[in-house]
Amino acid sequence: MVRVAVAGATGYAGRELIAVLRRHPGARIARLMSSGRSVKEPFPIEQSHTSLRGAAGQSGTERHETWCTPLDLDGLTPSNVDLIFLATPHETSESCAATLLDRGLRVIDLSGAFRLKDASAYPRWYGFEHHSRKELAEAVYGLTELNAAAIREARLVANPGCYATSVILALAPLARHGWLDREAGVVCDSKSGVSGAGRAPSEKLHFTEVNENCRAYGLFTHRHVPEMLQALELEEEGFTFTPHLLPITRGILSTVYVHLTRRTNWDEIASLYRDFYGHAPLVRIYPEGSLPEILAVAHTNYTDLGFALDRTGRRLVVVAALDNLGKGAAGQAVENMNLMFGFPWETALG
Amino acid sequence: MVRVAVAGATGYAGRELIAVLRRHPGARIARLMSSGRSVKEPFPIEQSHTSLRGAAGQSGTERHETWCTPLDLDGLTPSNVDLIFLATPHETSESCAATLLDRGLRVIDLSGAFRLKDASAYPRWYGFEHHSRKELAEAVYGLTELNAAAIREARLVANPGCYATSVILALAPLARHGWLDREAGVVCDSKSGVSGAGRAPSEKLHFTEVNENCRAYGLFTHRHVPEMLQALELEEEGFTFTPHLLPITRGILSTVYVHLTRRTNWDEIASLYRDFYGHAPLVRIYPEGSLPEILAVAHTNYTDLGFALDRTGRRLVVVAALDNLGKGAAGQAVENMNLMFGFPWETALG
Amino acid sequence: MVRVAVAGATGYAGRELIAVLRRHPGARIARLMSSGRSVKEPFPIEQSHTSLRGAAGQSGTERHETWCTPLDLDGLTPSNVDLIFLATPHETSESCAATLLDRGLRVIDLSGAFRLKDASAYPRWYGFEHHSRKELAEAVYGLTELNAAAIREARLVANPGCYATSVILALAPLARHGWLDREAGVVCDSKSGVSGAGRAPSEKLHFTEVNENCRAYGLFTHRHVPEMLQALELEEEGFTFTPHLLPITRGILSTVYVHLTRRTNWDEIASLYRDFYGHAPLVRIYPEGSLPEILAVAHTNYTDLGFALDRTGRRLVVVAALDNLGKGAAGQAVENMNLMFGFPWETALG
Amino acid sequence: MVRVAVAGATGYAGRELIAVLRRHPGARIARLMSSGRSVKEPFPIEQSHTSLRGAAGQSGTERHETWCTPLDLDGLTPSNVDLIFLATPHETSESCAATLLDRGLRVIDLSGAFRLKDASAYPRWYGFEHHSRKELAEAVYGLTELNAAAIREARLVANPGCYATSVILALAPLARHGWLDREAGVVCDSKSGVSGAGRAPSEKLHFTEVNENCRAYGLFTHRHVPEMLQALELEEEGFTFTPHLLPITRGILSTVYVHLTRRTNWDEIASLYRDFYGHAPLVRIYPEGSLPEILAVAHTNYTDLGFALDRTGRRLVVVAALDNLGKGAAGQAVENMNLMFGFPWETALG
Repeated sequence: MVRVAVAGATGYAGRELIAVLRRHPGARIARLMSSGRSVKEPFPIEQSHTSLRGAAGQSGTERHETWCTPLDLDGLTPSNVDLIFLATPHETSESCAATLLDRGLRVIDLSGAFRLKDASAYPRWYGFEHHSRKELAEAVYGLTELNAAAIREARLVANPGCYATSVILALAPLARHGWLDREAGVVCDSKSGVSGAGRAPSEKLHFTEVNENCRAYGLFTHRHVPEMLQALELEEEGFTFTPHLLPITRGILSTVYVHLTRRTNWDEIASLYRDFYGHAPLVRIYPEGSLPEILAVAHTNYTDLGFALDRTGRRLVVVAALDNLGKGAAGQAVENMNLMFGFPWETALG
Repeated sequence: MVRVAVAGATGYAGRELIAVLRRHPGARIARLMSSGRSVKEPFPIEQSHTSLRGAAGQSGTERHETWCTPLDLDGLTPSNVDLIFLATPHETSESCAATLLDRGLRVIDLSGAFRLKDASAYPRWYGFEHHSRKELAEAVYGLTELNAAAIREARLVANPGCYATSVILALAPLARHGWLDREAGVVCDSKSGVSGAGRAPSEKLHFTEVNENCRAYGLFTHRHVPEMLQALELEEEGFTFTPHLLPITRGILSTVYVHLTRRTNWDEIASLYRDFYGHAPLVRIYPEGSLPEILAVAHTNYTDLGFALDRTGRRLVVVAALDNLGKGAAGQAVENMNLMFGFPWETALG
Repeated sequence: MVRVAVAGATGYAGRELIAVLRRHPGARIARLMSSGRSVKEPFPIEQSHTSLRGAAGQSGTERHETWCTPLDLDGLTPSNVDLIFLATPHETSESCAATLLDRGLRVIDLSGAFRLKDASAYPRWYGFEHHSRKELAEAVYGLTELNAAAIREARLVANPGCYATSVILALAPLARHGWLDREAGVVCDSKSGVSGAGRAPSEKLHFTEVNENCRAYGLFTHRHVPEMLQALELEEEGFTFTPHLLPITRGILSTVYVHLTRRTNWDEIASLYRDFYGHAPLVRIYPEGSLPEILAVAHTNYTDLGFALDRTGRRLVVVAALDNLGKGAAGQAVENMNLMFGFPWETALG
Repeated sequence: MVRVAVAGATGYAGRELIAVLRRHPGARIARLMSSGRSVKEPFPIEQSHTSLRGAAGQSGTERHETWCTPLDLDGLTPSNVDLIFLATPHETSESCAATLLDRGLRVIDLSGAFRLKDASAYPRWYGFEHHSRKELAEAVYGLTELNAAAIREARLVANPGCYATSVILALAPLARHGWLDREAGVVCDSKSGVSGAGRAPSEKLHFTEVNENCRAYGLFTHRHVPEMLQALELEEEGFTFTPHLLPITRGILSTVYVHLTRRTNWDEIASLYRDFYGHAPLVRIYPEGSLPEILAVAHTNYTDLGFALDRTGRRLVVVAALDNLGKGAAGQAVENMNLMFGFPWETALG
């Protein structure tokens, strides 16, 4: 039984982690913590997440911790915790990881703090100076379909961004097999549900400002861009990523436009992807003529991929769909846990 | 040309007022003011309401004011303004009205500050002590279908609450003709879009907390209850009102359950209502077998009413629908203006 | 391993049943069937329900059937199937049940065909003459919280209607303990997501007719009324039920208005309910001052109950929330299976 | 007073036309017709569109026709009608136009029947052979911002497609001034509300299939592509257009990705657009740092345009927003009427 701590339990990713872990036959939630400033005293987690009320859904006879305490690393040692999920702000994660690793805990960080290999990129993209370069070097980028072997051995896993997961999985087979025309440029037009923006109230996320609306934001400046470039070995100049906010709660749809280095047909494309993801239980390749949509992946951990090719056989559109709280955050974090601790890849997921 | 000031221009009711007034052939917006604490300097109103950008929709050759200033009564005199709409917090309205009336301006207040005749009810329902008893006595309750004659002469109109408008219009014909069994009790189950809760961000109004949700709130304590009781001459003990929040932007549906003092049939009910509202251009009575719904009234100033009677002919359900920002706020305020200044009732509305 | 057949696999309840059964450690889907007229040939169920694509979520090493065939009772015998879920139209269920029982299968029917003890009520409420009176007499009403003992022994379970489940659970403790003032009348105002109306396209369920809308329907005539009256031992004359359509996919919120036979306080009410449902793992009683909402129960099998009492201690509002596809249909059907086959009550649910 | 007939009055564009024309001070609706097969007898239009119930919103003393009849050209002559709007299926429009023109009526066609100059393109894109080549040659493409002079004189106007309007207005200034790098290719990623898909029920437009969803469709095959290519003088090979369905009722957001032929900066781009659209009252250019969104244009006739430029000054993203039923259909049709009959451009719009 893996004993798990969750830091950042009061956010949406935290809630999702708790829900998934309660279904996991090999995990026990040993600690729930919140890094929120207003949290001074322990409180029942159901106060923060009504849907977690009650005891149903708890696996087996193990009892999960249901009280949430202020974030405090002191009590966390290998005697009571094997693994900690950090669903905390970037800088909080950055400042905690070294201590936790030194204590002998394994860490899965859901923030961006350990995703970029180049520490000097942090001031521009994340707005802070990175001081944990050793841990940055050690961290494994936790995109399970690409890095399963390294993840199994990792002490520190940087769980990928939600947008980044969708875009990288959409492009990796092309990029790694030389089919991607890097000169011609790549356009990624992504649409996300609101839970990806977190739980803090703001005027822009007020119901009446999102409902019956759709808007683009963060053009050329979104934080997930550098991890996409890094994973796909692309240059910023040829890569355009535009996120949009959808009036839905969960889900991402990424429509990715590329030129190919060779004229091809639909079957060749599908074969390339089927081979590339043949080992991955949570990627679904769509048949010709049908395309992924958010409804098919919401509340699951799947990434769905589909393709449309123009008449010349040179322009390809890849459509990728996933649940931003599932595969895009908590679900993939549990995939990483499954790999790190020897559980079947999709345990408690799917 | 009536010269109009709008105080509280940055809220949703304020925006709606501006949009309606820009379509009005006999009104010119002379002043826009905001009572928000963060407002220190004048700013273009389109900064606050993007949909108000641009000059289209302006009526005739009159130019409407498009800059919004901090709330300041000093500059408001009959030499530049005839009428002021107060779309401000209850206490702000309460403290401003006397001054404005003394200056010779006419006032339409969209808050609850002048809706209750009994000043002693304010501490319980509104949480503050009312100090403008003379104005309270003078104020006319601006439910146009019931009080048109008094409104025409009024200096101070208390624009009704959105829920109250739907419930009172649903029940007034029964209540005023003795058909309502007051002993048996009345149940009003109302459902409202989110714009009725205003524009201030809060955790409960975050998109992800409202979307795919419905919840009841304010049971037995909602502020619109006393104005309903007052207008219908009902006792609190026999009257239950429950508001619910719907995952939509605009609109109220009130389902009102009553017992009748006499056995009747559908046609008699419809006749009663058609007679009662025969003079009112913005009430629509539905034919047998069809019922109002929000979609038919959103972005209009109509109140739609429909009926279902049980097999005994004694239990009646009245369904009322209106747009909470239209008939439930800004639209009815402009109806009041139309009556006060001699325009046709539905000018700029409908 | 219980071998299960699902008839009506292409509807929403069918999809939900398949999803839940795939998570169930003690069940194997042995047959999927559709009663749709256009179904002539077997087809992969993922063609009908994209979200069921892929193999993840399958429990253990058992393989679930993934092809769906036209409805055909001939191949169903105890040698290959232990239990059949009928998620079929009322008349289809009515005509199939006797045959299946005679063969020795156990049956859980999600339609209304076996919910009413009085066969003569079917023409009025369901529009057909009931010919299976023996089975009607034998059928157990599968509201698990009320009838667990009988369900455990049942051969034929009539799974309750979604609205009925919410209303009966809201009222049963009052009704069965004599606290409900039957003379004063009961008003049930229910709001439901659209999945409760099924999957067949229609003008009234077109996206643009539901979105940004709310409407009442079926006043005094809804099919779930007689099963509510039967379970609560109430008379039609004192009972008003109004369903409303919400612009959401899943969930029911029922706001139930009653008068009590005695003056009481909040704690007494809560004690009554806590005692009544103390044995039931999937009912959650809310603390004072908080009320159920759909978001807390969507995608779960819980029924959440909360209370508000007026100042006189005689008028009570009970708010009940559940997921119409979970507790209101497929989830409760699996609860029934769990009881019938000796699994822990909430297996695969929660 | 222009006497207007509306063919196709029961669709969403028809409803919108009626609503706008009722606000128009210079138009009178003389005939309402429906081409639906099930329409055999005249019926009140409010039966089809509940929101059109009642007489409010009627301009002046003119009475608008409120009964809808089966489509029948026989009664339409210059003695009773000046202008007919065809909001009918493509082939219906194609077969009616010549007759109407020959009678001396002016025609604004909202279908695609007269948008493409090349008759031979119809079989591929629209699936029918075009037989009205003379009318095709005469027709003026009714994109008001580009063709106002020709529209003023036109007898037959082809009202543009909703997606096409957004994309063409986003690109025309670049395309016509040589700033668009045609070799590098253009990507248009558009998102639309459901009303654009019309009113006919279908499984794909059922509420539960659209809600909480987003999906791409019609890749490389959408009918609006050829009118975009024609207006922008682009080749199909370098142009990718992908429409997506949003879970909202009204509005289009198009995110358009281009490379420029020259290095530039934000101010130069904005100047180019401001000059190009300086004469057009219903195009709004956004200030730097802010981008159009659907909420700002819904229920208006504006097209909003905003820009983001990458660090190299060579890659530009143009974001365009409009209301697909307003500027994208009925609103632009009335703009065309205004130009054709000498009314101020934005009469009844805005």
